[in-house]
Amino acid sequence: MEDYRTKCIELLKERGVTIEDIADCARFLQADYHVDLKLEELLESVHSVLSKREVQHAIMTAIELDKLAERKVMEDKDLEAILLRDEGLYGVDEVIAYGICNLYGSIALTNFGFIDKKKYGIIAKLNDEGKGTGRCNTFLDDIVGAIAASAASRFAHRWVK
Amino acid sequence: MEDYRTKCIELLKERGVTIEDIADCARFLQADYHVDLKLEELLESVHSVLSKREVQHAIMTAIELDKLAERKVMEDKDLEAILLRDEGLYGVDEVIAYGICNLYGSIALTNFGFIDKKKYGIIAKLNDEGKGTGRCNTFLDDIVGAIAASAASRFAHRWVK
Amino acid sequence: MEDYRTKCIELLKERGVTIEDIADCARFLQADYHVDLKLEELLESVHSVLSKREVQHAIMTAIELDKLAERKVMEDKDLEAILLRDEGLYGVDEVIAYGICNLYGSIALTNFGFIDKKKYGIIAKLNDEGKGTGRCNTFLDDIVGAIAASAASRFAHRWVK
Amino acid sequence: MEDYRTKCIELLKERGVTIEDIADCARFLQADYHVDLKLEELLESVHSVLSKREVQHAIMTAIELDKLAERKVMEDKDLEAILLRDEGLYGVDEVIAYGICNLYGSIALTNFGFIDKKKYGIIAKLNDEGKGTGRCNTFLDDIVGAIAASAASRFAHRWVK
Repeated sequence: MEDYRTKCIELLKERGVTIEDIADCARFLQADYHVDLKLEELLESVHSVLSKREVQHAIMTAIELDKLAERKVMEDKDLEAILLRDEGLYGVDEVIAYGICNLYGSIALTNFGFIDKKKYGIIAKLNDEGKGTGRCNTFLDDIVGAIAASAASRFAHRWVK
Repeated sequence: MEDYRTKCIELLKERGVTIEDIADCARFLQADYHVDLKLEELLESVHSVLSKREVQHAIMTAIELDKLAERKVMEDKDLEAILLRDEGLYGVDEVIAYGICNLYGSIALTNFGFIDKKKYGIIAKLNDEGKGTGRCNTFLDDIVGAIAASAASRFAHRWVK
Repeated sequence: MEDYRTKCIELLKERGVTIEDIADCARFLQADYHVDLKLEELLESVHSVLSKREVQHAIMTAIELDKLAERKVMEDKDLEAILLRDEGLYGVDEVIAYGICNLYGSIALTNFGFIDKKKYGIIAKLNDEGKGTGRCNTFLDDIVGAIAASAASRFAHRWVK
Repeated sequence: MEDYRTKCIELLKERGVTIEDIADCARFLQADYHVDLKLEELLESVHSVLSKREVQHAIMTAIELDKLAERKVMEDKDLEAILLRDEGLYGVDEVIAYGICNLYGSIALTNFGFIDKKKYGIIAKLNDEGKGTGRCNTFLDDIVGAIAASAASRFAHRWVK
């Protein structure tokens, strides 16, 4: 079966998210525990998270859903409207994000909850952008938060070994 | 905010699934524990599950994804192909299904795993149909399994009260 | 089957946690969305969360584990030591907490991650206390966070109806 | 931090479960997909699952809880009784098991639900044994099911690579 890692990195870039942006979020999550953590130290963890098949499928599905809402080709116009206005009580975006975090254990889930509320860095940017006309980042901001949360959790577990 | 319960029942029907089909799956899951359980006794639980907002959003998203794959309007043709052939290692469908089961506790999750492998009743029918040309039930069969698993779990918890 | 709601409220109190403490955490989680939310408005949600059987079982198991570690009666002294020092990479406490949050959907999980990192109110107190000699709150602080996160999520979903 | 893999293998053995028993359950779960799968091919996956810190913590906690109930040293006699009779609606055992499965994605969760209901091999033995006087396997059978389900899921993902 195909490895979609390179494809996913391209998809994220095309939607305005670099691997460095995600590593920066992961560093923010680990900042309390390690002084002077360098971006490079977290980049490896981000790449490792992106190499998992389940993560790749989640990224592809999430970004496609955002684009489909933007292109207004959905048959269900209620759903399309919910996605376009990033309705707060719509939770399928977080459910897909949890599908990523779960692979990295309970620390990843806690990390996700924190960064999702704090809206640090690229997540804040995506969130603001998604509020503008025509742009839908409803799934993307959660996916980015989940990858960062997972990378930070992976880093924490390896640090103590 | 709008209640999409009636809409979801219509969406399911349109895709070939009745509330009775789902109650029948729930009865199958409870059959070991109760002799002579009537369909009517489980219909109420199915209706209760369908009245939850998170369940409604999951149904709408799942059915829309199946239709979008069928209509071949996705930009990501790799993803579209994965969905159309119901690729075994694609797991976002189960992740969304777990988002429903989780609301009904650990028994619902176990129930889901069982009926998903056993492919009882309407789930077998959806699965076979999805293997045919042009039809995509990749998300729907898991959603139906999740609603049945949740209804059975809810029933079990109420039975002992 | 017995309803352990009253028992759980007693168990929590005995460990230094009142229903008001938990409602205060839930209010903190909802503060961004509602100005001037009163404690009473969240107390009802806390009581509703405590009435679920799965929540009661989680509370009973969590508090018993903390006490068993304190009483030093565990056969596995490695585990006992991990619990007594609230080892950061031990995650079974969060796993049990997620078992509660999952019942209240994706918003509850995000809420939990946030309050677990922020350590607001009673959660900070429990955490500090657990660092002292002889006291183990390893499971309790997560359970309290999970009940608060769930109560806040339940409140948010009802508010918009 | 210490690696408890060897310790966990000893703990399982002491409770009557060998690595081969678990690999046999994993093979059962993969049997539909691969003819003539050898036990050795799954043993490597079982060992890999056991090398994860979160899995080790779950095993240690689960087995300790079973023993504490057997030794009747719990302060909460309601909880002790629930564990000793393996009360069907008590779900913390499955919650801890899901904490393992989640690390291996959605296939692991489905596998767990199936084997938990089917009660194949060592799981049936543990379940029967737990029904006898003085023996508590309430947590252990779910933990064993979760390790087998995870090993089978890991195997499936690697097979297609």
